[in-house]
Amino acid sequence: MNEKEGSARLPALFVGRFQPFHNGHLFMVRKILEDLDRVIIGIGSAQHSHTPRNPYTSSERQSMIERALEGENIRSYEIVLIEDVGEHSLWVPYVESLVPRFGVIFSNDPLTVRLFREKGYEVRELPLERREEYSGTELRRRMSSGEDWEHLVPDAVADYISELYGIERIVGVS
Amino acid sequence: MNEKEGSARLPALFVGRFQPFHNGHLFMVRKILEDLDRVIIGIGSAQHSHTPRNPYTSSERQSMIERALEGENIRSYEIVLIEDVGEHSLWVPYVESLVPRFGVIFSNDPLTVRLFREKGYEVRELPLERREEYSGTELRRRMSSGEDWEHLVPDAVADYISELYGIERIVGVS
Amino acid sequence: MNEKEGSARLPALFVGRFQPFHNGHLFMVRKILEDLDRVIIGIGSAQHSHTPRNPYTSSERQSMIERALEGENIRSYEIVLIEDVGEHSLWVPYVESLVPRFGVIFSNDPLTVRLFREKGYEVRELPLERREEYSGTELRRRMSSGEDWEHLVPDAVADYISELYGIERIVGVS
Amino acid sequence: MNEKEGSARLPALFVGRFQPFHNGHLFMVRKILEDLDRVIIGIGSAQHSHTPRNPYTSSERQSMIERALEGENIRSYEIVLIEDVGEHSLWVPYVESLVPRFGVIFSNDPLTVRLFREKGYEVRELPLERREEYSGTELRRRMSSGEDWEHLVPDAVADYISELYGIERIVGVS
Amino acid sequence: MNEKEGSARLPALFVGRFQPFHNGHLFMVRKILEDLDRVIIGIGSAQHSHTPRNPYTSSERQSMIERALEGENIRSYEIVLIEDVGEHSLWVPYVESLVPRFGVIFSNDPLTVRLFREKGYEVRELPLERREEYSGTELRRRMSSGEDWEHLVPDAVADYISELYGIERIVGVS
Amino acid sequence: MNEKEGSARLPALFVGRFQPFHNGHLFMVRKILEDLDRVIIGIGSAQHSHTPRNPYTSSERQSMIERALEGENIRSYEIVLIEDVGEHSLWVPYVESLVPRFGVIFSNDPLTVRLFREKGYEVRELPLERREEYSGTELRRRMSSGEDWEHLVPDAVADYISELYGIERIVGVS
Repeated sequence: MNEKEGSARLPALFVGRFQPFHNGHLFMVRKILEDLDRVIIGIGSAQHSHTPRNPYTSSERQSMIERALEGENIRSYEIVLIEDVGEHSLWVPYVESLVPRFGVIFSNDPLTVRLFREKGYEVRELPLERREEYSGTELRRRMSSGEDWEHLVPDAVADYISELYGIERIVGVS
Repeated sequence: MNEKEGSARLPALFVGRFQPFHNGHLFMVRKILEDLDRVIIGIGSAQHSHTPRNPYTSSERQSMIERALEGENIRSYEIVLIEDVGEHSLWVPYVESLVPRFGVIFSNDPLTVRLFREKGYEVRELPLERREEYSGTELRRRMSSGEDWEHLVPDAVADYISELYGIERIVGVS
Repeated sequence: MNEKEGSARLPALFVGRFQPFHNGHLFMVRKILEDLDRVIIGIGSAQHSHTPRNPYTSSERQSMIERALEGENIRSYEIVLIEDVGEHSLWVPYVESLVPRFGVIFSNDPLTVRLFREKGYEVRELPLERREEYSGTELRRRMSSGEDWEHLVPDAVADYISELYGIERIVGVS
Repeated sequence: MNEKEGSARLPALFVGRFQPFHNGHLFMVRKILEDLDRVIIGIGSAQHSHTPRNPYTSSERQSMIERALEGENIRSYEIVLIEDVGEHSLWVPYVESLVPRFGVIFSNDPLTVRLFREKGYEVRELPLERREEYSGTELRRRMSSGEDWEHLVPDAVADYISELYGIERIVGVS
Repeated sequence: MNEKEGSARLPALFVGRFQPFHNGHLFMVRKILEDLDRVIIGIGSAQHSHTPRNPYTSSERQSMIERALEGENIRSYEIVLIEDVGEHSLWVPYVESLVPRFGVIFSNDPLTVRLFREKGYEVRELPLERREEYSGTELRRRMSSGEDWEHLVPDAVADYISELYGIERIVGVS
Repeated sequence: MNEKEGSARLPALFVGRFQPFHNGHLFMVRKILEDLDRVIIGIGSAQHSHTPRNPYTSSERQSMIERALEGENIRSYEIVLIEDVGEHSLWVPYVESLVPRFGVIFSNDPLTVRLFREKGYEVRELPLERREEYSGTELRRRMSSGEDWEHLVPDAVADYISELYGIERIVGVS
């Protein structure tokens, strides 16, 4: 077995904040699993919650992902919580200390993309035309202003947010 | 004695940042003490100071409160310093670890209100019409722009801020 | 469905430091899975490594567990990394924030047992006669003094430690 | 009024860990109040609990002190929680930021004594012959080994520890 | 030798973020060394990097300064990294713990100026007319919008940023 | 110029705690400068002081080193303060973020040696026979028990410790 084959078998690492997990994230998980056997989903900014930009706790986000992927019969994933650290220059070594072995990185966050690239990782982003369609910022804006948003997330996530009174979380804090 | 009576005797916890302590805060302390024997005043964001939003240190804020309440002959209170913690989801357990026993919570900060309610606490807010009248944000805006502000705080607080050259604190940092 | 049935379905949480994962831990995982469908394995003191008491990093410990359980065809588990927090009184709320839902706790660490019991959780310990047989302290003593230790851990763990030059990790630091 | 008179009126700061509050601490509070109107009781290592050396949480220690002093009709005190900070060289500035104004320091902890003296404070220690009689270390040793200890603490503290199952806290963790 | 002479010989402390080191900083170093033998350059917000306001790591900033001053044949300086601490009221004691002995402070950051003045230090700012000419904010705005900026920094810094692909650092993260 | 020549020109990094700086450290600095043009002296555990194992603050240790090396006419060095970080597995990346470029590491601390070697660095230790002669532990034991110690440190360090009443620092805390 040559090196490239070995490397191809390492799981991908998909890093996002998932505030909340939406159809763009689901699209990306499916796309990753077309090429690779397994994906590690890294929930970033894990320690943050109850703010307009980070409304849900890491365990709420974990539940959303588990329910959404169960609804899709996707099982070849695992979830890792990744906190922000004080120093950006230490964040990649910190991720490396949390996640044993991973190959390519997937992320749409410019800072995540840059930090991994500076350390020599291969990083792939969502195609640009999809980024506008699937934006967490736009989704949270809709949630907080009372517009339709349920069609932008998996049904299981919409139900979960409703159980949690999760809209109030965004409205009440801003 | 039944449970409810017992609970009625627990002191209230009044949480604010008190940047600075103003007439709205004093109004609230008086109102709480109409119903309850004792109030614990929790100074939030205790570790912050020297920023436009948090100009005064926790010990300066403590002095303001002590002087203002002494001027009103109010003695049935105690002061607890409450720092922000990194994770909002741990803030209520952290407050519980600092303050032995308390009953109802009073606060006007939307995040404080939400976090305590999610943990099942009874939380009361200042009546809405008062909130506009008594706003720390408006007060600091007036202080930094040179408008009248002294009539919005107890005399003892106005004197204390003047001793401290406390206006410069707000102007100089912004 | 009554409440107790619902509760019986929640996964167990098995908390240890796994420095390293040994036969006693494997015995416990098997025993938990006799009664319950699923176990969450919480790797405690996750941030510590390279000390005599905590020689391996959290990702090394995660690899050990994955290899050992793969060798036993055990798949109904997931792994969560749990850091020590500065304040013991906040550790249980912190764990609750990391792990969405769990039922009974399994642990042999006296402090973990006490902290969860004080919060009202049901906690089960390894039977006493097993505790002497399976002790991480004794295992690390053997590893550092050059005595036999390989028969006390799953084969996959012994191999992994050998790959890692993991004995030197214990010897070199003490 | 000259400077010395002004300084004599500042409250004393009495710093200890109070694990638990014992008769030596009570003796010291009484002695301080013979000379001064008011004492600030600083509970040190406030963030620690559930260890053999620091069994009780800061709020449990606060309750012990309040009950003990209420039993003695002592009211001219206030309690401040003081956490350890990472850097000893910053601890005195940290205490100064928590406690608005204080004069002389009382403490029996050698590190506390040294750190305040290096910053130019007047620090007084318990007379040596009393230190042997009243030792937290000896008290905790007795509590953990099943010897008599109740006569070394105020009755209210003995009752409180008994309510709390506080002996188990020391035994179970060691 | 009298006290004042002794004090005149203490090195100055020049505090800035140096994001990046520009001609205004160089002007100030030269000006300080007209009066004093030696300057300690304190790199503030040392732990931050990879943000629009703090694009470069502390070690990158250190390299910029060393190269720029080498190009000017300036050798009577040393560099100290100064992190932000959580509490502004502890920042000056923290700096004092990092830097053994210094006399006058030079800085253009309003918060730094205020914090040192409140502790009784003599602090000097850049002349106002120079502040507009030499502004890090303006410089970063030019760098991110593709305007000319190279003439505002020493040549050695422009070269270093080019080697580092340092413009992308600012553009990519905003 | 080939790679090896380039690498030979990078300064060495000499990591120690220097509690206090003794003749063994001086021997090592001289030895390093026989082969290399420049040495970066990294003061480890920089945030610790006032404990038996770490009696002196980082700025006191920095002063000791500066005075000792001035007495030897050694000028081709610089000093960097290196704090312990919570996670040993992140310590090397942290050092890399503090110190721009360095080649070989010199240290006698087993943990430092191991952590750098695991990251692929070349690390050199003091010859074994010298380690017994020059031991910080032995030196501090002598200082605390009133035995002779002055001949084990440079004269400038003995003088500095005497000015500082530095022996009391070790005796008073233990």
